[in-house]
Formats: sequence, C-alpha cells, structure tokens
Amino acid sequence: MKLKEEQVSAEYVYNGKIINVRRDKAKVYNGTLADREVVEHPGGVGIALEDEEGRFFMVTQYRYAQEKIMMEYPAGKKEKGEDPLTTAKREIVEETGYEGRDFVYLGSMVPTPAYDTEVIELFYAKTGEFKGQHLDDDESINLSRLTLDEITDKIVSGEINDAKTMGMTFLIKEYKARNEK
Amino acid sequence: MKLKEEQVSAEYVYNGKIINVRRDKAKVYNGTLADREVVEHPGGVGIALEDEEGRFFMVTQYRYAQEKIMMEYPAGKKEKGEDPLTTAKREIVEETGYEGRDFVYLGSMVPTPAYDTEVIELFYAKTGEFKGQHLDDDESINLSRLTLDEITDKIVSGEINDAKTMGMTFLIKEYKARNEK
Repeated sequence: MKLKEEQVSAEYVYNGKIINVRRDKAKVYNGTLADREVVEHPGGVGIALEDEEGRFFMVTQYRYAQEKIMMEYPAGKKEKGEDPLTTAKREIVEETGYEGRDFVYLGSMVPTPAYDTEVIELFYAKTGEFKGQHLDDDESINLSRLTLDEITDKIVSGEINDAKTMGMTFLIKEYKARNEK
Repeated sequence: MKLKEEQVSAEYVYNGKIINVRRDKAKVYNGTLADREVVEHPGGVGIALEDEEGRFFMVTQYRYAQEKIMMEYPAGKKEKGEDPLTTAKREIVEETGYEGRDFVYLGSMVPTPAYDTEVIELFYAKTGEFKGQHLDDDESINLSRLTLDEITDKIVSGEINDAKTMGMTFLIKEYKARNEK
C-alpha cells in the first residue's frame, strides 16, 4: 500500500519566535487531498551528563504549556543550522555549569510525529571541568543529581513523564548493558 | 527559587483542526514578563497490544510533518472530554482490527514540554476478539508484529525513534520485570 503523502500546497498561518505553523494540502494514498497541520520547530538536543559517582544531572523547571513543574535531563534548542553536538556542548554548560566530555551519540527522537517537525538529538557524556551556569534571562531551574535506578523508579511511578527523559534513560541502560560489563 | 510562571495575557494566533496556537505573556521568576508560545492539543493515547505469542502490533505509516515513514505503537487522539481508556479501546480496534483486553495503564508521557499541552496516556493490553480494521479516509498504514526484543533492537539501531514507542517499550519492560516472573 502506498504510504507516502505529497505536498500540494502550503500556507503559513503563524510565524513565531520558536515555532512556525503551516496548513498544507497533501495528496494521500488514494489520490485525494487531505489537510495537514504542521508545527515547524528547529529541533534540539538532550544531554544525559553523568558525574564521577554515576549520578545524572536533572533539571527541574516550570513548564508553562503543561502548567506544572517537571524534572528532565538538560536539553536545549538548536540555533539555526547548528551541528547538534555543538548545541549539546553549549547547553550542558549553560544549564549545569559543567562541561561535558566523552560525548556519545545515542540517536534521535521524534517527540510528536503526527504534526511537528521537531527532532531531538540525544547525547550521553561525562562531567568535565566546572565553568559556571549561565541561564537565559527568563529561565529558572533547580538542579539535582540522580542515579539511573532513581530516575527509572521516578519514571515507573509517573513522577517523571517527559518523553526525552524516558527515551534517553532507556537508551543509556541499553548502551551500558551492551558496551560496559 | 521560584519556578512557577503566571499567565498574564493570552492571544490565539491560530485556531486549527487538530491544534490551536496561543501567544501568551507570562510573569516569570524575577517578576519580568516573558513570551510563551503554546500549541494546544487535545492529547491522545498509545496502546501496546500483545498477541498470544508475545508479539506487539506495530503501525508503519507516513508521517507528513517528518517527511518519512515511521514505525510506532498504535495511537490516536482523544475526542474532546473523552476518557483515555475509551479512546484506547476505540483506536486499537480501528488500527489493528483487534479488541484489546486486560488493559493496564502504564502512565502518561509529555512529548513536548517546552511549548505543547499534549499529554499521551499509555496502555498495555492483550489481543481480544477480531472485529476488523476501520481507518480514517485519509489514513494508510501497514501492520506488523514484533517481539519486545525486536522492538528494542530497532530502537537501539535508530530504526524506531518515535518518542512514545521508546517510552512505552521502556515502561512495558519495567512492568514485566516488576510484575511477571
């Protein structure tokens, strides 16, 4: 069965600061036209930063759209055209104060495949030199450090339910099981 | 440190079919105003449906916003005000043809905390009676069945990178490890 859908027309209905929104017509499998709403986002990175004692830095912050405080791995948006590793190295210092070293690329994740272009590139790194945190003016976060087992328990209990944090924890556990004895 | 942000004003910049988009002013930790873009989405469900041989139904479909074919667990949007278990029971028949039984609620997942209200409720069920697939007019999918180990390998290799599929696989493995011997 034909799965691919062809763009027939595109209309920008919103051009914003972080996102743009398009309303497209697409030709679908049976030749008819369907409406497709698309949120355009530049994409970002998530970084699991592990200290010498096997604890991971966690960022706790208010998520306005969700109207609640959430605990997540450090993350950030890519600047336009930026290489994701560059974003990861910048964001990890900004949010935790620590440089990362020995970066491992864990893969990518699509948070919202149904209507959003966003892709998050996932990294795993060890703590390097302390340089000092520098947050955006409108940003306020609390930092903590948890072991992978503590993070896993919080995911299972529902206390952590951020998609990238769930996916990254899974990938790090698989990475450790396959690459470390 | 004060984390909560207070809504000061809201302006709808797009009212669409699946999403609405708001541009808000929010009072942040230091009392200043910040811009907050919010995509409003009704939320949805993901369902991991396991057959008698321990294989899970996977949906392969073209994801227009991502411009690629992706493999995911069955999922669907909630109707307005709908109880998520009702959505899950409806969607699983529509997409796979099979009723689900013995539904287990695995928890919720926030795919895009930075700018989107969407929450996905995650379920794990066993295959029940075959009723026949009935897809939306503009929907075209391929179905397959994979074991949890096969799904895990595809996540590690990057062939599967849908956030809910990653998160649900993690939760099902934890659920099985903690509840089944």
